[in-house]
Amino acid sequence: MNVTIRGRTRPFRTVSFEDSSNSVVLIDQRLLPHQFVLVKAGDFRKTALAISEMIVRGAGAIGATAAYGLAQGARAFRGLGLAGFQQHVALVYQTLKSARPTAVDPVNAMDQVRAAMQMGESVAERQALALAAAEEFAQEDVRHCQDIGRHGAKLIRNGMTILTHCNAGWLAFVDVGSATAPLYAAQAQGKKFHVFCDETRPRSQGATLTAWELAQQGISHQVIADNAAAHLMQRGRVDMVIVGSDRTLGRTGEVANKIGTYAKAVLAHRHDIPFYVAIPLSTLDWTITSGFRIPIEERHQSEVLGAWGVRTQPHQRSSGKPQRLYVRVANPTSGALNPGFDVTPAELITGIITPQGIFKPKDLWASRRKLGGL
Amino acid sequence: MNVTIRGRTRPFRTVSFEDSSNSVVLIDQRLLPHQFVLVKAGDFRKTALAISEMIVRGAGAIGATAAYGLAQGARAFRGLGLAGFQQHVALVYQTLKSARPTAVDPVNAMDQVRAAMQMGESVAERQALALAAAEEFAQEDVRHCQDIGRHGAKLIRNGMTILTHCNAGWLAFVDVGSATAPLYAAQAQGKKFHVFCDETRPRSQGATLTAWELAQQGISHQVIADNAAAHLMQRGRVDMVIVGSDRTLGRTGEVANKIGTYAKAVLAHRHDIPFYVAIPLSTLDWTITSGFRIPIEERHQSEVLGAWGVRTQPHQRSSGKPQRLYVRVANPTSGALNPGFDVTPAELITGIITPQGIFKPKDLWASRRKLGGL
Repeated sequence: MNVTIRGRTRPFRTVSFEDSSNSVVLIDQRLLPHQFVLVKAGDFRKTALAISEMIVRGAGAIGATAAYGLAQGARAFRGLGLAGFQQHVALVYQTLKSARPTAVDPVNAMDQVRAAMQMGESVAERQALALAAAEEFAQEDVRHCQDIGRHGAKLIRNGMTILTHCNAGWLAFVDVGSATAPLYAAQAQGKKFHVFCDETRPRSQGATLTAWELAQQGISHQVIADNAAAHLMQRGRVDMVIVGSDRTLGRTGEVANKIGTYAKAVLAHRHDIPFYVAIPLSTLDWTITSGFRIPIEERHQSEVLGAWGVRTQPHQRSSGKPQRLYVRVANPTSGALNPGFDVTPAELITGIITPQGIFKPKDLWASRRKLGGL
Repeated sequence: MNVTIRGRTRPFRTVSFEDSSNSVVLIDQRLLPHQFVLVKAGDFRKTALAISEMIVRGAGAIGATAAYGLAQGARAFRGLGLAGFQQHVALVYQTLKSARPTAVDPVNAMDQVRAAMQMGESVAERQALALAAAEEFAQEDVRHCQDIGRHGAKLIRNGMTILTHCNAGWLAFVDVGSATAPLYAAQAQGKKFHVFCDETRPRSQGATLTAWELAQQGISHQVIADNAAAHLMQRGRVDMVIVGSDRTLGRTGEVANKIGTYAKAVLAHRHDIPFYVAIPLSTLDWTITSGFRIPIEERHQSEVLGAWGVRTQPHQRSSGKPQRLYVRVANPTSGALNPGFDVTPAELITGIITPQGIFKPKDLWASRRKLGGL
């Protein structure tokens, strides 16, 4: 999507590859929204580090980063023997996999690249095939997000106000995003609308990442406290909710997503406001039979007890060196409970926007073949 | 309530009066929860400044501060003539009134003190009556909060977990508080329970003030993100909600309170969790006929776009000089919408805990005489 730097606007992807320098090029998401910095990871170990240090985050984005990282590592091999090459590739694979050991996307992505490589008969052929497969993986991620956008944009009418929660934007993917894709597609169609970005405490990804994305794309928006959504719905100021998903249960239609999503679904239901979840197919889980069986990650207390930001005066925009720092907000002798995700039942979800179209949550199972399921 | 300073625990009131120095003694709430500092306002102008600079906040607390301030000003008069005294008292009254021009509590409190003073025949008598009336005002505030506590404590059973929102604690009154009063009363009865303090963005009064209060009283508690309450309710981890009220409509049973209260009421209703509102009689409004007619204050964007805290390491408690600073969290080019309050309809409220007992919201009107109404 577009980013404007010093008055000049040009398109960027969250993850891309620079052939000439054999580098993975990433937007450093740790510095957003206060600084836009590109990082060139010049070898596969630096790419692995970029994943583990959260320079890049988001399912689609770390998948593509690992795919490129595997190709990058393969291309750096200088010998001619296939046995040595395979040994080297195994090392690269392990290094990238262990950068985020619990994530499934890097593994799936690298498995695609590795399978494609096996078709080559020489080291050089396999190196070329690896890069082509990584590019194809990234391109497919973009296409899927664009498909989500195409389907979701039909729901957006001129003059609407749309509530979002957290960031399922282009920064979480290679480009375009999932929950944001319908917004970008509707904008491209010339539709005018307004977005409320839930701040999304405790990590504030709505106020930081989603707001930054929408500002860069010139989409009208305001940040709101998570507490304000109910009041705005009651006063008729929200027409639709679109959120992302970390895990979508194909059997029940339940959606696990960032903490606070369930609250917004309950509130939307009370006010008869459509509540949509936009998902790439990779979040579909066809095995778990109940949302209560999804493990809910308990995150560190410090996220709730404080906030990360840039020091500035309250009534001014930040200026000078945008150095992010942590401040303790809460009472220093109190602790916190910090569940990271919650589960929204199918009955509260109007529709699930997928690359294959919009489905009622209860219809996912019947459409499982179309959706890449069992 | 109790405060522990350097290992020594003793009781404090939010507002008190030191006869010997003719001073109003206040807890500096701007420095909490990171520093506990008492401020002695040595003359009525300094007392007015303490109100306008938010050293003291909360309806009951600023009422008592103004009452004491009027007595303080009257006592500082050095002449003997009643005409000169009355002129001086009028100046004191105006100075204190204009410290928070839209608040009704300081005016009501000072009117009580002024009426009592009129019974005296000399300057000295009037000075003595003024202080006695101010003390009586403060004492009545405490008694009313204790009555709320006595009624509300009956709702609390051993082993319960209670959710609170914002701070309607003893720091907002002379002592004891409204929403916190049942907690302190139940604790005094030896009941064991746990409290979840909603952080209460954007100003975080739950994480700062309520958590500080409960920590000082030794009540088991944890801060949670406002987003987490729905999930905890869904998992059966919340047994009751108690909140305060900024304005309670006697005709309809609707409650205007800190933004996010309405969301918690909707969520409690969905999960069949009792939702109580604790109020002093002064928040009852017998004239407005609909919650939609309550003006909702739109507050400054900076509250949503950033946070106030003490600089520290994320995984440590704050140490060193606890200097509060503001950090900008949100994207620097985005704006915010910041409604400060919302309105909860009567149908979502299980009961209204008053000094006169617990009422169904729809029964307030029928009991209006008992509740000091029309």
